[in-house]
Amino acid sequence: MNDVIARYALTDRAENLSARAEGIAVGLTVGSWTDLPRATQERVEPFRGRIEEIRTVEAIDGHRVRAEIAIRYPMINLTDQIAALLTTVFGKLSMDGEIRLVDLTLPSAYLAQFQGAKFGVRGLRDRLSVYDRPLVMSIFKTCVGQTLDELGMHFREQALGGVDLIKDDEIFFHEAVPPYVRVKRYREEGLRIEQETGRRPRYAVNLTGPVFELKERAKRLQEAGADLFLFNVFTYGLDVMRELTSDRDIQIPFMAHPAFAGALYASERHGIAAHVLLGDLLRMAGADIAIFPSPFGSVKLHRKESAELIARLRAPGPFAKVMPAPSAGIHPGMVPLLMETYGKDVIVNAGGGIHGHPAGATAGGKAFYQAIEAVLRGVPLSEAAASHEELSDALAKWGEVRG
Amino acid sequence: MNDVIARYALTDRAENLSARAEGIAVGLTVGSWTDLPRATQERVEPFRGRIEEIRTVEAIDGHRVRAEIAIRYPMINLTDQIAALLTTVFGKLSMDGEIRLVDLTLPSAYLAQFQGAKFGVRGLRDRLSVYDRPLVMSIFKTCVGQTLDELGMHFREQALGGVDLIKDDEIFFHEAVPPYVRVKRYREEGLRIEQETGRRPRYAVNLTGPVFELKERAKRLQEAGADLFLFNVFTYGLDVMRELTSDRDIQIPFMAHPAFAGALYASERHGIAAHVLLGDLLRMAGADIAIFPSPFGSVKLHRKESAELIARLRAPGPFAKVMPAPSAGIHPGMVPLLMETYGKDVIVNAGGGIHGHPAGATAGGKAFYQAIEAVLRGVPLSEAAASHEELSDALAKWGEVRG
Repeated sequence: MNDVIARYALTDRAENLSARAEGIAVGLTVGSWTDLPRATQERVEPFRGRIEEIRTVEAIDGHRVRAEIAIRYPMINLTDQIAALLTTVFGKLSMDGEIRLVDLTLPSAYLAQFQGAKFGVRGLRDRLSVYDRPLVMSIFKTCVGQTLDELGMHFREQALGGVDLIKDDEIFFHEAVPPYVRVKRYREEGLRIEQETGRRPRYAVNLTGPVFELKERAKRLQEAGADLFLFNVFTYGLDVMRELTSDRDIQIPFMAHPAFAGALYASERHGIAAHVLLGDLLRMAGADIAIFPSPFGSVKLHRKESAELIARLRAPGPFAKVMPAPSAGIHPGMVPLLMETYGKDVIVNAGGGIHGHPAGATAGGKAFYQAIEAVLRGVPLSEAAASHEELSDALAKWGEVRG
Repeated sequence: MNDVIARYALTDRAENLSARAEGIAVGLTVGSWTDLPRATQERVEPFRGRIEEIRTVEAIDGHRVRAEIAIRYPMINLTDQIAALLTTVFGKLSMDGEIRLVDLTLPSAYLAQFQGAKFGVRGLRDRLSVYDRPLVMSIFKTCVGQTLDELGMHFREQALGGVDLIKDDEIFFHEAVPPYVRVKRYREEGLRIEQETGRRPRYAVNLTGPVFELKERAKRLQEAGADLFLFNVFTYGLDVMRELTSDRDIQIPFMAHPAFAGALYASERHGIAAHVLLGDLLRMAGADIAIFPSPFGSVKLHRKESAELIARLRAPGPFAKVMPAPSAGIHPGMVPLLMETYGKDVIVNAGGGIHGHPAGATAGGKAFYQAIEAVLRGVPLSEAAASHEELSDALAKWGEVRG
């Protein structure tokens, strides 16, 4: 059946649940039912929502219960905008008491309207010609207030340790050094580094500016030699990203930043579950790389939520798999746990874990590769550290994190 | 000082508060401070955030406290996109534990980059030539699955009671009857009704479609005779609306729908306070009318939050005042309370309170005007009902709500 199924976790009086579910199913589709003339009822039937499930989870007190309600929404009511989906399944409803959107089941006929990731895990690996290990990404630490030469120097310092990717800070909107200029400069630095080390670091430039100029900006940055885009999808809008990623003239991978997503997923009883927001919806929006808080670091996503999110990013179906970039507080001593949890198809993404290395950012990058190599060879980090100074320094500072 | 001040309510250990505040001020602006060379420190100084206030609100247990932290962000770090503001002040931070953005103070130099409402309360009244009373708006009940003739008939039935505005259901994305066709048909109905009653009902059409086509769609709908736009600003994006409302070729008021906003404001300890989201940010986005849940009806906003929201929509400053449309569960017996709370500059917005009238939608519209007229004359509803059948029926069904 071509229905979108939305599942909600909510609090209500036990005796209200079935009327509540019916109110959602009808109110958010055909508006009313029993008041309609018989002939109209027949004609609007295909547009009417239906109750898929009502399940009581636990009693709170004598009257109220926590429950889950799942509703089927006919996809005929929707267009191919993510705005249409969210307005329908969690528009008015988001304001109606203690209620959280915990799951979406999207039928293949509905998903067929979306393209998903243009590159995904495989396309990204093809671009980098790296197939057999996790990728390492470094984050610019200080961006605003820096001159082009300082930024170029920072790029070089981070890159020399061998990192695959370097991304702008997502808060870098300031344009004293415009993105076109940065792309050109870092490309020059990258080509120089390739001559020295045999590997060219790629730069993810923060795609910013007025919404209605973003397509043109993306194309200009592409012409200037941009490797990847970093995009603040939750402050710009999911459909904005979706329309950028599905533009045939934009042939550059998109890295979705989760900035602002916590305002939507962080509460337990309101908003939207992280695996829906950072998983299902980002896939529809065409993310090639999804950054999200790892369950291990300083800013955490719950372990269970994180596992479900990864499952969504890699779920089989019509879309290319998304490359996960679990972030925040990542350091070399976390590499075994990251690879155990996510396998090889993961981006090890670090800011402080690279820049804060006792011997500097270049050593920081090296320490990550030494850790990855050790894991791939099945050698404990402590053992690898004996013959690798950078890794040894990193472990002395941060230790090794075990699951 | 040209700083944006953001205030957060959060939970943390008491002894962490000042390091936490410093981490936000530096981490979300210049990235690092103590590690920078002296000369660099001097140069990035104007970009550095500062702690405005740290205030402990209450102790939770021996260690943790609820606190408020206010941070100054230099506006030089921001561009004039709302995405830049939100990514900076509540991007990464939104994911960092129990934290809520509870206030924004925006300096006039920053606000000068925005236009605010193009029409606002005064412009809207000029368009309708109604100055001395609240406006009444009726909401289409059933939209999807209806033929053009049925929709035209519903429009006429709602309009004949004398309502000023009729809006699409916000979930109406389906285009079997395209918006251009609806605008033309309802305009014809409206002109006919004007000949009959002397008053032309205005139609707020749901502006939908791909993001990068919205400007063209808005202009086409304007050419087709659209009176107002309804816009799902929280599923499309605040900057999308801002760029539409500030387009010089679009000379039509925008009504911002709060669909999906509950996912952001409804939790007490996460997300964004409603008065920031539906007040400050909607003003920046250029809303002429802001729909929000009233504190009285079926889907509620807390009374205090609602009062603060109204204060923001009407706050003096560079922008035209926004017309409030408190909604959900509004019926004629609520009019005295609405007018006592909001004054005359308010839209009385009803769906069920019009369509559910025992004698039908036309009578429903009439009952609202009878209630408004009674309040303006200082006559109790019960007294006015004695000589007004429609009001009498409405009160018999819904009663009168007192504050």
